[in-house]
Amino acid sequence: MQVQSSALCAAKPLSTPLRVGAKSPFSTSTASDPSSMATAGPKWAQKTITLPPLSRGCHLITPKITKEIDQDLSEFKCGLAHLFLQHTSASLTINENYDSDVRDDTETFLNRIVPEGTSAPWKHTLEGPDDMPAHIKSSMFGCDLMIPISNGKLNMGTWQGIWLCEHRDYPSARKVVITLNGI
Amino acid sequence: MQVQSSALCAAKPLSTPLRVGAKSPFSTSTASDPSSMATAGPKWAQKTITLPPLSRGCHLITPKITKEIDQDLSEFKCGLAHLFLQHTSASLTINENYDSDVRDDTETFLNRIVPEGTSAPWKHTLEGPDDMPAHIKSSMFGCDLMIPISNGKLNMGTWQGIWLCEHRDYPSARKVVITLNGI
Amino acid sequence: MQVQSSALCAAKPLSTPLRVGAKSPFSTSTASDPSSMATAGPKWAQKTITLPPLSRGCHLITPKITKEIDQDLSEFKCGLAHLFLQHTSASLTINENYDSDVRDDTETFLNRIVPEGTSAPWKHTLEGPDDMPAHIKSSMFGCDLMIPISNGKLNMGTWQGIWLCEHRDYPSARKVVITLNGI
Repeated sequence: MQVQSSALCAAKPLSTPLRVGAKSPFSTSTASDPSSMATAGPKWAQKTITLPPLSRGCHLITPKITKEIDQDLSEFKCGLAHLFLQHTSASLTINENYDSDVRDDTETFLNRIVPEGTSAPWKHTLEGPDDMPAHIKSSMFGCDLMIPISNGKLNMGTWQGIWLCEHRDYPSARKVVITLNGI
Repeated sequence: MQVQSSALCAAKPLSTPLRVGAKSPFSTSTASDPSSMATAGPKWAQKTITLPPLSRGCHLITPKITKEIDQDLSEFKCGLAHLFLQHTSASLTINENYDSDVRDDTETFLNRIVPEGTSAPWKHTLEGPDDMPAHIKSSMFGCDLMIPISNGKLNMGTWQGIWLCEHRDYPSARKVVITLNGI
Repeated sequence: MQVQSSALCAAKPLSTPLRVGAKSPFSTSTASDPSSMATAGPKWAQKTITLPPLSRGCHLITPKITKEIDQDLSEFKCGLAHLFLQHTSASLTINENYDSDVRDDTETFLNRIVPEGTSAPWKHTLEGPDDMPAHIKSSMFGCDLMIPISNGKLNMGTWQGIWLCEHRDYPSARKVVITLNGI
């Protein structure tokens, strides 16, 4: 099997300084010596965003995420973006970004596979019949994503998008900690 | 939809040196120039911990993990903590940290969804009827976690905890490689 | 419960410069000050590889991945390797690396749990009966992996391997963005 490959990162440090995002609410930190700001040191940036309540089901949130980080992303030649959902009854996943039927069908699948209501064997029912199923779905899809950054952009495939899957009937605002790291 | 956000990382490098964890078994490495220790360079720390055998089911291990890394975490203003389970018949996941019924119900779910014993269609049975189901559960929940570090602590949500899910009947000690990176 | 631990990273920065991978197609970047190349600054490396089409099912691709990054990995004392599949109808997971029956049984499981064909409730069917199931399986196992790097190697467990799970009947070439970061 032949594997084709292409390099994205430059073989040498960037010769121009990375601009510190002073105008952005998404504060950034260079880790290099302050006395040599012309050096492209590794940078870290982290902020918490709060997404308003979304109805039960799978939602494409790529535009909401990129709007929050686009200015900061543009300063990274190469790196990684981490999204961490601070909740146990919703999830983050990457999937198809075009046809909303894919999101509906995924919600259908989750509801088929995780019993809810009188037929369900759960002991944890105090917070409602949809709560324990929500916890299970959260672990099935996971609460975090790591996406490569290349040339100032999230380097996802053509058809990939970021989904927030809300597993509760009565949704609440959801917090996502976004961490950027790179050069 | 309005997205609220707040920045956690400082816009400038820390002005005081990060202490190298000489007293900790969790050795740390600064990547900055040794001649400029006043600079808060990016740091890496990595160690392998061994958890004693835990019974089949889901276990909250947050205290065990944080006890191992709290001293080192305190030196990171902003970063990421990675946990990697070196096994294929157990898993790591983040879920509810309060009611043990949630962990019991999750184990119930896993056992319902993955057939085991005479009704199961598996070819891989040499290591016992619980072995192939354990492998499947391991891929369902995954073997690694990435958690943001903010202001010296794991920045999880109020109700989030780290779970080790043991999928074998006769459990064994489990190794977790912990990697910290940040400033 | 007693937790045993061992440190892998050196407590001090490496005293010799990390070689920039000039001979490798996988270009690497040091983020340290170019005028102090003797310092082991954090490095980033990133490239995209293209895997040829693989048949529907689970495939062990550890050798294909390590062949692509072994030369570069050898320059990292401590770090993380990220693999990101740029597709929504295949997945990456870590599981057993020895018995191919485990991979066959996992494919059997996925096909049992996700309905396909006339019995399936999917709305998204334009791209064939295997397309919507493929999307669901992709979110179940996920499209990315993060693996610790220790002493120049991927620090997986003895029985762990990297799997590409192809969920389509008519497979296509699959792109994986590999990002290395460490010291």
